[in-house]
Amino acid sequence: MTILDGKKISNDIKNEIAEEVRKMKERGEKVPHLAAVLVGDDGASLTYVGSKVKSCERVGFESTLVRMPATTSEEELLQKIKELNHNDDIDGFIVQLPLPRQIDEQKVLMAVDPTKDVDGFHPENFGKMALDMEAFIPATPFGILELLERYHVETKGKHTVIIGRSHIVGRPMSILMSRKGYPGNSTVTLTHSSTQNIAEITKQADIVISALGVPEFLKADMVKDGVVVIDVGITRVSDESNPKGYVIKGDVDFVGVGKKASFITPVPGGVGPMTIAMLLKNTLLAREQRKS
Amino acid sequence: MTILDGKKISNDIKNEIAEEVRKMKERGEKVPHLAAVLVGDDGASLTYVGSKVKSCERVGFESTLVRMPATTSEEELLQKIKELNHNDDIDGFIVQLPLPRQIDEQKVLMAVDPTKDVDGFHPENFGKMALDMEAFIPATPFGILELLERYHVETKGKHTVIIGRSHIVGRPMSILMSRKGYPGNSTVTLTHSSTQNIAEITKQADIVISALGVPEFLKADMVKDGVVVIDVGITRVSDESNPKGYVIKGDVDFVGVGKKASFITPVPGGVGPMTIAMLLKNTLLAREQRKS
Repeated sequence: MTILDGKKISNDIKNEIAEEVRKMKERGEKVPHLAAVLVGDDGASLTYVGSKVKSCERVGFESTLVRMPATTSEEELLQKIKELNHNDDIDGFIVQLPLPRQIDEQKVLMAVDPTKDVDGFHPENFGKMALDMEAFIPATPFGILELLERYHVETKGKHTVIIGRSHIVGRPMSILMSRKGYPGNSTVTLTHSSTQNIAEITKQADIVISALGVPEFLKADMVKDGVVVIDVGITRVSDESNPKGYVIKGDVDFVGVGKKASFITPVPGGVGPMTIAMLLKNTLLAREQRKS
Repeated sequence: MTILDGKKISNDIKNEIAEEVRKMKERGEKVPHLAAVLVGDDGASLTYVGSKVKSCERVGFESTLVRMPATTSEEELLQKIKELNHNDDIDGFIVQLPLPRQIDEQKVLMAVDPTKDVDGFHPENFGKMALDMEAFIPATPFGILELLERYHVETKGKHTVIIGRSHIVGRPMSILMSRKGYPGNSTVTLTHSSTQNIAEITKQADIVISALGVPEFLKADMVKDGVVVIDVGITRVSDESNPKGYVIKGDVDFVGVGKKASFITPVPGGVGPMTIAMLLKNTLLAREQRKS
């Protein structure tokens, strides 16, 4: 059994990007510039945005954090997005979700220039991805593809079963794993809350990608020997024996399923660390596209 | 066994749209206006566009056929599209494919204003569909949904197997059948040229949607009793006993599979006639959206 080590791969990618940026500087080129918009002061959002900014510094990107008060109107946020769209110095930007109630998230995502949409949340990017055109792929799915690729996991002709149809993981993964090319070319089954006899389906899977959010949902008796398991679940489960008062659990019973799996991602340290690396990679791609 | 009668349903829909247009006229409102752009004089394309224009007349739409010579440059076509995008009298328009070699189809589809893209081919529409936002759904998938709905075929929790991952049928159907709502909420397996043991998969299906283009590919021993079968295949097979010299065959062995099916579309007369009806419906929707 091989652990798909997202922490290590994420570090490798950041090092590769840092090396790329070093060369850009050497050539006297502009380095990638990522902006992040944070509305309000939700603690978790602050942490996420903070680590994105820190990662930018680490690889040598320029970064800008735009903070706006929790009382920001939709109009004001849309105006700020317009500015970022037109600011030639910014290669890509993200709007940290969730947004305060008075702001329509859909309207905001639609306002982002698709060529700067490094989160890959604009429908134009989503559609391009589904139609096999060049596009920004959302960070979590992009990270899963990268993990499969770096560990040379065979996907062609395999049966990939995806658990969960969310817009940011399940649905894009179902598209990406069935596209031509590598990783891809899988027969893909997308399962969700209306699926019956889920265990019958997962038992047939060569690859299971779970993005359900139910701790230890996938048990050993639901998979076959040699299965590849990608666990996207991240749930806090209270645990008094832990100094934090909780532990992070994935969707997969790691100990049980691990005994049958050929490859498996741990939680934490699997898919999670990949997302920021892929956001950086998208920003690098955005910079390269603006050059040409 | 019930035949899903696309010819009849298509007629019903056209009658409903004609009634809607009659009411619009009564209220003194502008009626929907569809434009079709045809570059060159390919015989099949002429026939398709001709029947689209005729259907517009039948339901009371205004229609405009824009014919351009086979030697049209990409630049000239893009200029024409720009005109149609800005022409307030046109509610929706289509560019008949295929286009002559010197023109990049992707560039052309990207140039169409998504709010007038009644073919649903622009990536923004595709992405909106995948992200459960309001969007123009391409005519063939839209027609399949309509058939399932009008015959009250249960889809929730059913296992839908799709054969073929084309941009205009297989991939959008895989998304639509797994979305929340009705028709949808199916567990969906998308199969394609890299799929192994296809018969093992189709045998598990409650619903099979085949868009492969291989005549009589799906045989009785590949499906279970009570299966619902949607046949999107249309292939000309030479047949000297037929005055035309050919017959139209679907992907499904209709006689054999029909004995086991609960619902089945014939070819011709199933999915085919639905497409023009749904193009008209999209044009009606485009008009309604422009009003508001």
